[in-house]
Amino acid sequence: MSAVLPARGRTSNQRTKGTNLSLTVVGSIAFDAVSTPFGERSKMLGGSAVHFSLAASFFTDVRVVGPVGEDFTATELAVLENLGVITEDIERVPGEQTFFWKGHYEYDLNTAHTDDTQLNVFGAFDPKLSEASSTADMLFLANIQPDLQRRVRAQCGGARFTALDSMNLWIETARDSLWEAISEVDCLLINDAEIRQLTDQPNLARAARAVMEKGPKAVVAKQGEYGAALFTPSGFFALPGFPLEDVRDPTGAGDSFAGGFLGYLDGEVGPIDELALRRAMGFGTVLASFNVEEFGTERVARLTRDEIDSRMEALRSMTDFGQTRS
Amino acid sequence: MSAVLPARGRTSNQRTKGTNLSLTVVGSIAFDAVSTPFGERSKMLGGSAVHFSLAASFFTDVRVVGPVGEDFTATELAVLENLGVITEDIERVPGEQTFFWKGHYEYDLNTAHTDDTQLNVFGAFDPKLSEASSTADMLFLANIQPDLQRRVRAQCGGARFTALDSMNLWIETARDSLWEAISEVDCLLINDAEIRQLTDQPNLARAARAVMEKGPKAVVAKQGEYGAALFTPSGFFALPGFPLEDVRDPTGAGDSFAGGFLGYLDGEVGPIDELALRRAMGFGTVLASFNVEEFGTERVARLTRDEIDSRMEALRSMTDFGQTRS
Repeated sequence: MSAVLPARGRTSNQRTKGTNLSLTVVGSIAFDAVSTPFGERSKMLGGSAVHFSLAASFFTDVRVVGPVGEDFTATELAVLENLGVITEDIERVPGEQTFFWKGHYEYDLNTAHTDDTQLNVFGAFDPKLSEASSTADMLFLANIQPDLQRRVRAQCGGARFTALDSMNLWIETARDSLWEAISEVDCLLINDAEIRQLTDQPNLARAARAVMEKGPKAVVAKQGEYGAALFTPSGFFALPGFPLEDVRDPTGAGDSFAGGFLGYLDGEVGPIDELALRRAMGFGTVLASFNVEEFGTERVARLTRDEIDSRMEALRSMTDFGQTRS
Repeated sequence: MSAVLPARGRTSNQRTKGTNLSLTVVGSIAFDAVSTPFGERSKMLGGSAVHFSLAASFFTDVRVVGPVGEDFTATELAVLENLGVITEDIERVPGEQTFFWKGHYEYDLNTAHTDDTQLNVFGAFDPKLSEASSTADMLFLANIQPDLQRRVRAQCGGARFTALDSMNLWIETARDSLWEAISEVDCLLINDAEIRQLTDQPNLARAARAVMEKGPKAVVAKQGEYGAALFTPSGFFALPGFPLEDVRDPTGAGDSFAGGFLGYLDGEVGPIDELALRRAMGFGTVLASFNVEEFGTERVARLTRDEIDSRMEALRSMTDFGQTRS
């Protein structure tokens, strides 16, 4: 692997003038209550920005932006900081509670059923990025209200690569804002059912093309256990989900995918070309697969780079047609 | 491609004593009435054995076994024979009509809704294979009642590789017979939802293992537009569906997949090892993709081997991580 994936190999021509080589993510920092057929947790660290930043931390410097309440303690902060995530832009709101999500999964684990959502600190969130976060060379707008995503995007004018996730709620309630937000990023990374819903187009290839016509140069369709597909103007690539016999909690899989995907792009490659995007899909798949093996952040919090590289190699062999067979 | 896929390269040690190098398929030969958002046909050639044998015909000699009624004309027969399918074992039943299926698809094309099924000639079908069909070295039991599948299997004792498809109807109404039939073949090739239903196991990797514990050495989970996954005792392999912007009629896609898969294995490879199975998955994917581009057998009936090889190469590039990048 070492020749293929040099550790943090960066060349000076990758930098956009005035930026620093780090990855900023804005999104939810949450407490989750989750129940699956394999167990439950009543209050564990979660949220899109958390899952994303932990996954990305194995590849690059990650700055996480988002609000927390008074109930967010040093214990939760330590989970992020132990993996090197930069938490300076986590904003503690006095007198408020952290965003809270409660959900459960049925036996097949494919659909999250939301039982409760408490916005708390997110009700009045107005992102103001520090100098360091706003000059990061890469930006991920995790799934939050699209007007908030746009306000963050506007503060990161120099980023060389920006990506965005969203969900059915915003397609239904803030469609125009969401399209504006999408038109301002390089990559849309979203569930495949939501790409179809967003574009009113049941054919995924056509739906992806409709998105690219609005601006993004890449569309990643997340397909749950079926993996993920990448559409670019010049190509198509797809990977299956990494096959696992034990999946305990799918919460955060999509954000871990995004973290592996963007983290790799920021930390380990030069120009972001088709091949770099394909490798990034592989690391996204691998990080998502570790995420779902245990509850919340539990597995990724003690993950090692060797484990990632080993599973990446396994994934590669699982998709190999055997080109060199004589 | 020529070095990778020698045309019909067979060595004598592939033959099981007393067999001939051909592929026998038993299944339905049908008239279909199909309506999709992109058109409709009131009576067109269809059926699992038909879609299978047309797809397989590009790779090997195929013998199709099944009953038809008096309404089955030289026109339908010619579609099969034009691609070289051997039709000697098609049994014409006097005074009866051909099996008839009527169905429609909604806008997303993912689910077939059955509006009518008329068994007709299949009501009293008792398969009796000719000498040539029963000594084929490869056998595909398309989706018919599992006791019928077993009766055919018993007549093909010398086959070196046997595979079986089934459906939810038989899981619900003939579960024990189906398990017996599965235990007597080398490969189960079935929709992924049906593997879960058959094994009462929502986790696909565990479900596939449960099937292999009953006898089969390979399990292919067909996943519609998401592609297909291959499980063997030693490995896992998956391919996405070939991305198409125009899908007009999904009817027969699974049978075309099986035809490409088994046809390739019979006609073009020596030992059936992991790599051969992976390539077979590729050809299955390619044949299924052509099948759905037009109604019924219309596209495959005028397909060429060059078109197949060209799409196989495209599929390979769509799943390539870029191993040789410097």
